[in-house]
Amino acid sequence: MSEARFENIEACVFDAYGTLLDFDSPARRAKDTLGKNAEALSSVWRQKQLEYTWLRSLMGAYAPFWQVTGEALDYAMETLGIADNELRQRLMQLYLALNPFPDVAATLKVLKQAGIKTAILTNGTPEMIAAACSNAGIDGFFDAILSVDEVQIYKPHPSVYQLAVDRLGAAKERISFQSSNCWDAIGASHFGFRVVWCNRYDQPLDQLSAKPDAVIKSLAELPPLIGIK
Amino acid sequence: MSEARFENIEACVFDAYGTLLDFDSPARRAKDTLGKNAEALSSVWRQKQLEYTWLRSLMGAYAPFWQVTGEALDYAMETLGIADNELRQRLMQLYLALNPFPDVAATLKVLKQAGIKTAILTNGTPEMIAAACSNAGIDGFFDAILSVDEVQIYKPHPSVYQLAVDRLGAAKERISFQSSNCWDAIGASHFGFRVVWCNRYDQPLDQLSAKPDAVIKSLAELPPLIGIK
Repeated sequence: MSEARFENIEACVFDAYGTLLDFDSPARRAKDTLGKNAEALSSVWRQKQLEYTWLRSLMGAYAPFWQVTGEALDYAMETLGIADNELRQRLMQLYLALNPFPDVAATLKVLKQAGIKTAILTNGTPEMIAAACSNAGIDGFFDAILSVDEVQIYKPHPSVYQLAVDRLGAAKERISFQSSNCWDAIGASHFGFRVVWCNRYDQPLDQLSAKPDAVIKSLAELPPLIGIK
Repeated sequence: MSEARFENIEACVFDAYGTLLDFDSPARRAKDTLGKNAEALSSVWRQKQLEYTWLRSLMGAYAPFWQVTGEALDYAMETLGIADNELRQRLMQLYLALNPFPDVAATLKVLKQAGIKTAILTNGTPEMIAAACSNAGIDGFFDAILSVDEVQIYKPHPSVYQLAVDRLGAAKERISFQSSNCWDAIGASHFGFRVVWCNRYDQPLDQLSAKPDAVIKSLAELPPLIGIK
């Protein structure tokens, strides 16, 4: 648990999947069909989804996150020996209606009231993230919703983080970036943002070239960190 | 199990870790200390080692594979709650003396006798791979040992595979590339090599933008595939 003072923050930029929206909720909601496979499916699905974004970016073979998410689900289902096209459709639809984490709406409200600009910076396609935010009831809170689809390469490539600088018109060091994905927090740190790792999943710190500036367990801890009472 | 005819192959290029050399052997040899944690440690170590190569490449923060391997081991040990510096040193030293798979030496011998050029194309640093090949007794079999360290970015970036083309002086389609890492096989396929996925670990095919041309279970199946009796 580290803390740092964040001064003169103009904008808070949030990762979406895992930070605002709970990517485990589809498998949990389909537990009637998945049974004891629910957790394993969700875990492999997420792991492969991320791997495929990194690998496609490195190979120079970008494909939209909706396609990557479906391909990762196919891999996860095959790993667990599940062949069920109806279930696949259902899980993909549920990915458009992920549960928001309980600390999200209240935190966003506080930030908006304090005059902080807010944005999402996500791997998701514009269509996916629009549907998910609308279904989660948080679409009214953001000044901008930015997708990697615009630059056709995934996080943690610097051109993704640059999108937020360009579109919010704020300097890197005036932007506080929040992610529950440690590697994303580190990528954003390496880029030059002030960075908060929201360690929702109680994971060890990834050993990469940079560190987040602060670690919190819930987004409710964010406003005081950037000087909002 | 798919098969394809490989014609006019001039050179066989091999991935090292997982394909020629068994990355699980350090944890297995340290089972006296690791006990029931041996398998889990090896699995997290390998997973993080790969993740860190992809993430560092995307972030533009290359570090040599020896450092990345150590940092991945640190993460794996922390995940399992193991704090033991002597064990860490031992595992790192064992990574320089990985067991070769039992099909490796015989296959390489057949290829050399048939006049096929052979090379290693690896994430490992020149020092790591030289030590590992020497300790495994396979260092005499290769015409070239090529490391990503030369291009300072990891697989599956195309500039890594290009190294083999440049250094072997053979056209892409005259090179057969072998890897037990499905994502590496797919990266090489996307680049334009003829590709054999040696599916040693009985894994599902990764759902990415390309497919290997052939799937085998052991390198012993390679010579007939490229027309050597």
